[in-house]
Amino acid sequence: MCVPGCQDVVARRLSRRGLFKGVAGTLAGAAVFTAFPPPRAARAATNGFSRVVDLTHTLMEDFPTYFGVPGLEMERTAAFDENGFNMYKWHLVEHTGTHLDAPIHFAKDASTADEIAIDQLVVPLAVVDVKEKAAADPDYLVSVEDLKAYEAGVGPLPQGGCVAMNSGWAEKVGGEEFRNADGDGMMHFPGFSKDAALYMMEQGVVGMAVDTLSLDHGASKTFDTHYSWLPSGRWGLECVAALDEVPASGATLVVGAPKIKGATGGPSRIMALV
Amino acid sequence: MCVPGCQDVVARRLSRRGLFKGVAGTLAGAAVFTAFPPPRAARAATNGFSRVVDLTHTLMEDFPTYFGVPGLEMERTAAFDENGFNMYKWHLVEHTGTHLDAPIHFAKDASTADEIAIDQLVVPLAVVDVKEKAAADPDYLVSVEDLKAYEAGVGPLPQGGCVAMNSGWAEKVGGEEFRNADGDGMMHFPGFSKDAALYMMEQGVVGMAVDTLSLDHGASKTFDTHYSWLPSGRWGLECVAALDEVPASGATLVVGAPKIKGATGGPSRIMALV
Ligand SMILES: [Zn+2]
Ligand SMILES: [Zn+2]
Repeated sequence: MCVPGCQDVVARRLSRRGLFKGVAGTLAGAAVFTAFPPPRAARAATNGFSRVVDLTHTLMEDFPTYFGVPGLEMERTAAFDENGFNMYKWHLVEHTGTHLDAPIHFAKDASTADEIAIDQLVVPLAVVDVKEKAAADPDYLVSVEDLKAYEAGVGPLPQGGCVAMNSGWAEKVGGEEFRNADGDGMMHFPGFSKDAALYMMEQGVVGMAVDTLSLDHGASKTFDTHYSWLPSGRWGLECVAALDEVPASGATLVVGAPKIKGATGGPSRIMALV
Repeated sequence: MCVPGCQDVVARRLSRRGLFKGVAGTLAGAAVFTAFPPPRAARAATNGFSRVVDLTHTLMEDFPTYFGVPGLEMERTAAFDENGFNMYKWHLVEHTGTHLDAPIHFAKDASTADEIAIDQLVVPLAVVDVKEKAAADPDYLVSVEDLKAYEAGVGPLPQGGCVAMNSGWAEKVGGEEFRNADGDGMMHFPGFSKDAALYMMEQGVVGMAVDTLSLDHGASKTFDTHYSWLPSGRWGLECVAALDEVPASGATLVVGAPKIKGATGGPSRIMALV
């Protein structure tokens, strides 16, 4: 039994595109990431840029989190007046603030944050604008149709690159509307559909970015998008800021991901070179 | 009383170079950083690159630290078999691994990590090679003469950019020779001299990077380089890796610094675009 869009179909399609190593690697073990084709950034002779856009929210102890409890506590360990210098110790849940989801976050065995190849962290960026749809429906799921409309109107999804959802959610980050929880604690914010994730995998996209707290929409109980995307050796970015300030195509995304052994992700400095 | 090289002299020299706003801002309060002249990266119409070099060591619990005690503890908070996903909480001293020193680290009042302007984190990189001198003398201090030799042989120090010391120390990171502590616990590794720091300030350099555990050399008890450099609104990078793989000039440094409110620095993903 295999309906269109299921993992087997994708595996076969990927195989036809010469990407089978990546999928097989995921099944077999870790360190799959280098099996992807090199991103456009690594292939081009020269990548030019003239300005840098910061796509990172400032993280603080009361930054909203998926789990609804603080993800960061700053413990002061030195103060200038007393010690001659300032220093803190962070007590930090990895998935807090503008951050990376490494493949291992939703997989039994896949790349950890430190194992993602550096060439996969400087890649072309596509921004898909669904602000109107998300304003009308906070449970909105980015669809295959949205991606095909992007391809028709802007250009191909970037092979070896990252596709970002711009849902307009970043501007809500200071208020309750960012988590947008109802009386039962169910959150309502947009995300990528599983079918969109599978379609992006077919196109050889390696990164998925959202301006919300989760790759899946807030109301998901099954995390289909996380479970489709991450175990294939791909990474995600959550709580990305300022996507209005980068073009729909042509920017280079720089993911300043933590290089901590075994990490399942972590706060990252995200920039776009435009 | 003001001998050459003291802060007053530097302030006057900087003033003559139109940099007085930066120094005045440091004295008056925070958010000085944007007062620096824009780095070459922001002024040029286009910056090209064809490859990315990762200048970041992998951080782990037993990574060597300045203080000689572990700077990171990874607490597992979710495991795939039990929870369906993997996650850790980090207990992390800010100044651990390949990391940023924000101006506030050695100042009563200066920019925190999140306040450094994004344009100051993507800047031209100069690499000064002192490997032979450091091999002969582990207490070696990069001198003004070393910087002038760079200027004569390679080109000007980058205004608005970063100067890195390549002392050959990065390859020692796995062993005791990285801290190189003697019987009294005194460490012996190279660093920048105070005079070199002051000279770099005159040239409008904004970042200082070392491949060791401190901007000052390991034997320092007075931290003259930290106290000269950071309170002026400039930043530092410590434990930088792989400087052998970037050219002496022409690369663009990307500092994936943490954007955590109030942070005095923190583990960063450092890259060079070559
Ligand atoms: Zn996450
Ligand atoms: Zn430090």
